[in-house]
Amino acid sequence: MSKIWQKTTDVNALVENFTVGRDREFDQQMAAFDVLGSLAHTRMLESIGLMSADDLTVVQAELKSIYADIQQNGFIIEDGVEDVHSQIELLLTRRIGEAGKKIHSGRSRNDQVLVDLKLFFRNELQLVVAEIKSLFDLLLSLSEQHKDVLLPGYTHLQVAMPSSFGLWFGAYAESLADDLELILAAYKITNKNPLGSAAGYGSSFPLNRTMTTELLGFGALNHNVVYAQMGRGKTERIIAQALSSVAATLGRMAMDQCLYLSQNFAFVSYPENLTTGSSIMPHKKNPDVWEIMRGKCNRLQALPNDVAMMTTNLPSGYHREMQLLKELLFPAFADLKQCLHMANFMLQHITVKTDILTDPKYAYLFSVEVVNNMVLAGTPFRDAYKQVGLDIEQGNFNPEKTVNHTHEGSIGNLHNTQIAEAMDAVLEQFKFEHVEVAIEKLVK
Amino acid sequence: MSKIWQKTTDVNALVENFTVGRDREFDQQMAAFDVLGSLAHTRMLESIGLMSADDLTVVQAELKSIYADIQQNGFIIEDGVEDVHSQIELLLTRRIGEAGKKIHSGRSRNDQVLVDLKLFFRNELQLVVAEIKSLFDLLLSLSEQHKDVLLPGYTHLQVAMPSSFGLWFGAYAESLADDLELILAAYKITNKNPLGSAAGYGSSFPLNRTMTTELLGFGALNHNVVYAQMGRGKTERIIAQALSSVAATLGRMAMDQCLYLSQNFAFVSYPENLTTGSSIMPHKKNPDVWEIMRGKCNRLQALPNDVAMMTTNLPSGYHREMQLLKELLFPAFADLKQCLHMANFMLQHITVKTDILTDPKYAYLFSVEVVNNMVLAGTPFRDAYKQVGLDIEQGNFNPEKTVNHTHEGSIGNLHNTQIAEAMDAVLEQFKFEHVEVAIEKLVK
Amino acid sequence: MSKIWQKTTDVNALVENFTVGRDREFDQQMAAFDVLGSLAHTRMLESIGLMSADDLTVVQAELKSIYADIQQNGFIIEDGVEDVHSQIELLLTRRIGEAGKKIHSGRSRNDQVLVDLKLFFRNELQLVVAEIKSLFDLLLSLSEQHKDVLLPGYTHLQVAMPSSFGLWFGAYAESLADDLELILAAYKITNKNPLGSAAGYGSSFPLNRTMTTELLGFGALNHNVVYAQMGRGKTERIIAQALSSVAATLGRMAMDQCLYLSQNFAFVSYPENLTTGSSIMPHKKNPDVWEIMRGKCNRLQALPNDVAMMTTNLPSGYHREMQLLKELLFPAFADLKQCLHMANFMLQHITVKTDILTDPKYAYLFSVEVVNNMVLAGTPFRDAYKQVGLDIEQGNFNPEKTVNHTHEGSIGNLHNTQIAEAMDAVLEQFKFEHVEVAIEKLVK
Amino acid sequence: MSKIWQKTTDVNALVENFTVGRDREFDQQMAAFDVLGSLAHTRMLESIGLMSADDLTVVQAELKSIYADIQQNGFIIEDGVEDVHSQIELLLTRRIGEAGKKIHSGRSRNDQVLVDLKLFFRNELQLVVAEIKSLFDLLLSLSEQHKDVLLPGYTHLQVAMPSSFGLWFGAYAESLADDLELILAAYKITNKNPLGSAAGYGSSFPLNRTMTTELLGFGALNHNVVYAQMGRGKTERIIAQALSSVAATLGRMAMDQCLYLSQNFAFVSYPENLTTGSSIMPHKKNPDVWEIMRGKCNRLQALPNDVAMMTTNLPSGYHREMQLLKELLFPAFADLKQCLHMANFMLQHITVKTDILTDPKYAYLFSVEVVNNMVLAGTPFRDAYKQVGLDIEQGNFNPEKTVNHTHEGSIGNLHNTQIAEAMDAVLEQFKFEHVEVAIEKLVK
Repeated sequence: MSKIWQKTTDVNALVENFTVGRDREFDQQMAAFDVLGSLAHTRMLESIGLMSADDLTVVQAELKSIYADIQQNGFIIEDGVEDVHSQIELLLTRRIGEAGKKIHSGRSRNDQVLVDLKLFFRNELQLVVAEIKSLFDLLLSLSEQHKDVLLPGYTHLQVAMPSSFGLWFGAYAESLADDLELILAAYKITNKNPLGSAAGYGSSFPLNRTMTTELLGFGALNHNVVYAQMGRGKTERIIAQALSSVAATLGRMAMDQCLYLSQNFAFVSYPENLTTGSSIMPHKKNPDVWEIMRGKCNRLQALPNDVAMMTTNLPSGYHREMQLLKELLFPAFADLKQCLHMANFMLQHITVKTDILTDPKYAYLFSVEVVNNMVLAGTPFRDAYKQVGLDIEQGNFNPEKTVNHTHEGSIGNLHNTQIAEAMDAVLEQFKFEHVEVAIEKLVK
Repeated sequence: MSKIWQKTTDVNALVENFTVGRDREFDQQMAAFDVLGSLAHTRMLESIGLMSADDLTVVQAELKSIYADIQQNGFIIEDGVEDVHSQIELLLTRRIGEAGKKIHSGRSRNDQVLVDLKLFFRNELQLVVAEIKSLFDLLLSLSEQHKDVLLPGYTHLQVAMPSSFGLWFGAYAESLADDLELILAAYKITNKNPLGSAAGYGSSFPLNRTMTTELLGFGALNHNVVYAQMGRGKTERIIAQALSSVAATLGRMAMDQCLYLSQNFAFVSYPENLTTGSSIMPHKKNPDVWEIMRGKCNRLQALPNDVAMMTTNLPSGYHREMQLLKELLFPAFADLKQCLHMANFMLQHITVKTDILTDPKYAYLFSVEVVNNMVLAGTPFRDAYKQVGLDIEQGNFNPEKTVNHTHEGSIGNLHNTQIAEAMDAVLEQFKFEHVEVAIEKLVK
Repeated sequence: MSKIWQKTTDVNALVENFTVGRDREFDQQMAAFDVLGSLAHTRMLESIGLMSADDLTVVQAELKSIYADIQQNGFIIEDGVEDVHSQIELLLTRRIGEAGKKIHSGRSRNDQVLVDLKLFFRNELQLVVAEIKSLFDLLLSLSEQHKDVLLPGYTHLQVAMPSSFGLWFGAYAESLADDLELILAAYKITNKNPLGSAAGYGSSFPLNRTMTTELLGFGALNHNVVYAQMGRGKTERIIAQALSSVAATLGRMAMDQCLYLSQNFAFVSYPENLTTGSSIMPHKKNPDVWEIMRGKCNRLQALPNDVAMMTTNLPSGYHREMQLLKELLFPAFADLKQCLHMANFMLQHITVKTDILTDPKYAYLFSVEVVNNMVLAGTPFRDAYKQVGLDIEQGNFNPEKTVNHTHEGSIGNLHNTQIAEAMDAVLEQFKFEHVEVAIEKLVK
Repeated sequence: MSKIWQKTTDVNALVENFTVGRDREFDQQMAAFDVLGSLAHTRMLESIGLMSADDLTVVQAELKSIYADIQQNGFIIEDGVEDVHSQIELLLTRRIGEAGKKIHSGRSRNDQVLVDLKLFFRNELQLVVAEIKSLFDLLLSLSEQHKDVLLPGYTHLQVAMPSSFGLWFGAYAESLADDLELILAAYKITNKNPLGSAAGYGSSFPLNRTMTTELLGFGALNHNVVYAQMGRGKTERIIAQALSSVAATLGRMAMDQCLYLSQNFAFVSYPENLTTGSSIMPHKKNPDVWEIMRGKCNRLQALPNDVAMMTTNLPSGYHREMQLLKELLFPAFADLKQCLHMANFMLQHITVKTDILTDPKYAYLFSVEVVNNMVLAGTPFRDAYKQVGLDIEQGNFNPEKTVNHTHEGSIGNLHNTQIAEAMDAVLEQFKFEHVEVAIEKLVK
């Protein structure tokens, strides 16, 4: 395999196979972003006199052509080529000869990978945000649609107080809005430019890092070059934490769904073709989608720990195993996007049961209502509490099953508008359009 | 033990001991915050007609007196009293009789604990931020002070390129600035008002949740009451993730310190009374502070997983084990603050070695410099790379040991001012003064 | 504070406070085991001529007296004394003067702590095994007692096939028997002698490690002294894994209990004084014991990861943070023993519902029975499956609710005797009596 | 896609894609084991009258032919076929018609998967043990070969006492021997027969589970059928814990290697073609194999937590996400086997430096020797300790650099024979030949 750092001695094939592993497979997903990095880097090289204007012209034209090609046809790393960077350099030199090799000046493989990863992660985070927003909108709309349908609220898995589908759907919407704060933090930390940090200690070339920051649409520089390198592993951990928070929200919803689909609850149902059967029990309508989602979300919840385990106790400076973090993060993005999409798809087909509370086992739900009404009528709380408790113990508890909750965020006043506003307030801070404008200018 | 939910049958003593566990110990740290919650709640109760103006006057006066007492003398939960809420109610009724019991109206134990935890966590996060800022300032100042002292930069633990103490200290400062983004996200999610969510399904009382939000200085409401309850466990997990990020930064610094204090590196040293000895090796000067810090930071890095493990796969609604999260979070805050403080203390006494690079094993550090200089003088990169490689292999490599790095974030241009500005930009978003003003009004 | 490694310069008080932390608190639990180690070590020292016979006589007498005192009255580390080892040496020198100091010869603090921990862990594992066996016996007896009571078996949380309380209780018994294999592996790894490894590199004294191995009842030597030191952290991780397996069994049982106590299942119940109430819902009978148990078991399930996070990526040789592992392991033993004890206590008071399957929603449980009966009567499986499926879809499914399962491990043939035999076969391999005999000889 | 549980309504394609995921890819690795299960199951079916002797003859012949084919040519699940079980049934019915469908009687998909997984894991564990034994032998042989070569022993990463390559290599060998205890426990728990548990609640057919246990070479039954199903997830977690322990040993060795290969230690070296270079630093000889190994071993150390996160808090009974555990476990076996193999390969080419201790910074290693010699000559320990400490502080410490350690497990007496015996004693307990004989009888 042809490598830039090739010495006079070949690297043993076993060693190469072990150290490269699945890396080329993941690298293919970074190809477009590697080209973006080179488009910006070469413009900067020209600006500081490390590339001639003529070379720049041909290099830019070919890189843009490669970029368009990747967007249309995908990307393949050829056999015998080490990684995405070498493949792109190879494509370039095939087309424009020696000038293609000059794109490597003033960069190390380390900061080239760093910037590729940042651009890739930034883009994936944007896609995740889009899926979150879509699911959020659906949840709020389901909340409005079913706001008058009551269901039991549980504490300790015991029948506790009246709840509603309005509350239930709305709660998961608001949870996603809070999760977005973490995605935003991860996005801000990701969206800083490591290019120019070379192998983590900077360069003797008079690079203009501010220029590449602007060209690539980054929000800021990773200033200190040692810190830029420290971002490897740290960025992945922080992103994993942000994804895990969304996964925790989805996972809890999935558990609720599995429970509510059980014959012992039977609060919701789905069309038969969205459930699966059993090889020996013909009556089963299994909630496999929600179970697989719960499992995938638990996988995602364990992810930050996997990243931390791999990076902790390592001294500063690059270590080769950082490469393995791709195997953790890349599938995680795919999984989370798919889970968000499937939750969206399933919820479009949910049917909620509208007469749940007629079942006598849910009468106790109204004990607090009765206590509160007695309090409003003048009975001290503790006396009311004791009276209702005795009525229940002695079988004399027959409440009216009506709910009149009016305060902010309660059954009768869901505050969905305010939740939507809170979501929008976080969304705005991403400033995706800033990135989109920069990238468009870079590749057109 | 006297409990508000006491039924006619006593709870078995074994059961009580097992379920209460260490909870009262942690509750003591929440006492002042529980009083704040009651100060706001009772003012709201009066505003909606659930408490008389006269009762409010005496209740407010006594709560403020209890608050002042806690601030001065601390707080003890008496034997036989279940928790912090019962103890405060007890203090109140001792002083003002039956009126003291009315503070419970319109609240459940669940939202009372939720708001106490939020107020406690919010305060702890502010204290953590103060420690971070102090350490950040010291690191930047050390970076400036030692900006001209070179040390080897490593990749793969191999001597790689010249670095500097300016870069090394500055990198950790910038790392803390990025960590602060996560603390900010955690702070925003924490700083929302759950009061009024009752047991997680709202209340039939016409509560004014916007009013308590303002009185307690919260940034916003947890709108949906089911979501407010879902915040239990979620808030803890997100805070743990934010703390873990700071811990990861400190832990890496601690590992660097242990390595650099080893006789095999000997890059830094400390006064003898800040190291510890060995019971059988009289020459040892062990870096115990950094080792314990590394261990504590690893404990903190595992913390989010501990929280996730306890909460995952539980359906929505309160579950009793949420109480155990106090045992995880409360010591974590104490540990992280102590680690930040000790890092600060140690770094005030660090001595850096100023002639490290005179050791011949570090000559190779300059290979990239030499390659780059050849490139700047017109040799193609690959040719320069091969020439220097051969020189090294044949023992002909004798570089000048000077570094002239000028780009943003490099040895000669640390960008410490910009890093400080980035830090300040995040700090401003906490708006701590908003909280401070609200609390001061509430208790005065 | 007086320390053996005291140099001419005092260690800074902040440093000492930070590095000692809660260590003295945990050390108190190791006191008796530290004395055992010294009883064996001094007999060995005398045998190789490093202690006179006269000194040995007084030292042994006083150590035995201290041991008896600890067993009767507990142990306190006095203010100003560093750790358990120093406290015991202090007690000794107070009583017998200079001879007391000779017990330190041929040992490092490192192998002294190692052997104390091994003896402590070994003893705790034995206590855990006793609790497991007691719970196992109760579960098998409940299985026999309720073997004819049916309940629904679930897959995907969907009503699936008939199960029985005989199966349900028996399954958890058999699970504990398998968990014991891991406890046994942990016990074997723990029960090896590290004494004589000094600071992890051995000693120039002609120690007789085989002798201390026999005196302390260890099953074998940790032979290689570097490996003996590597056992620190590794032993803790392996023990944590073994404990976590028992915790996983208990945690799953606790989740079943919480579900089965819910009004939506109502399969089991407990006396009212073993459940707890609600401050605003007088009808609640909350399964707090099982919830707290579930939470504690999840804490224990996360424990091995906590240990791994603290120890991974550290090079070989002792590091100070190993001390912090006590904070993880010591409470874990206490928690697991308490959980096992409380599960035992609760299950002694469980009532199972005997007519669960009369509820029509459980009719589908018998679909497989009907399919199988059709198969036994000659219908091909797929045809039978389709027929029953159609009957269910069209509302024509009215099965007989009888179960006649006869094969090994099924409802009618629980194999509880075989499960008990499997348990005994693992139990025998611990050979606890070997340890008990050795310790008795050492202290009498 | 054709499915046995196909109802009249098709499952939505999105749902199917999401729930099947990568499962078919992993299923291919289980094909041979699925055939083994069917070979045993059908012989049992015939013995209880559920399959005719004639059908058995053709079914056995064809299954054996399929088995041989898989061994020679591998296995592919055709497009449109759901899983490995359906594919094998399809192959069978293509060849022998309707009789092929009868192999499904008396089994559920659940216990069929359970037994396949157990057989697959059992086989993988045997392969792991073979790799461990091979590496163990090499380590012991390196220990013997380099037993006289000294290197510094570190505590707190500080130069502490003399160690040797004999100790260093031997320590990792002994560590593997202890790890094997956990592999053995996992093997015992794995090697129990779940077949006959059907969907986790047994069967109305008079199955002979003892017969399939013997035919498949299992060591015992999973007796209770509910427990047999509980084994899903539990087996995976326990295996993951066992693998993680081997990984922890390898990971620590890898960290030592990276450190010792650093120019700051330079204790060991490798041929140039087993290290890798740098794209900008021509002098680098990076220990990429050991870094990737460290990373993979950390991935494996986090694995048990991933499994626990997915399974905790789920009530008993099958849940669909159990399927996702294949994605965790199957690559883990491949990774660990590869890591063991690569460690073996690398260590065959290691060169150790023989004059390390001539470097003056290692003089302090001998301080304990000097103290001990003074003690043997009559000076009280504390006086000797203080004298040597003062000599060191005042620069008067010039020790003889000889080591004379004689006790068990020390530099001069490595106890490698005893370590090998301990290894063999664990190995014997696997009784692999019992399994091999059974399988050979089943397929011949």
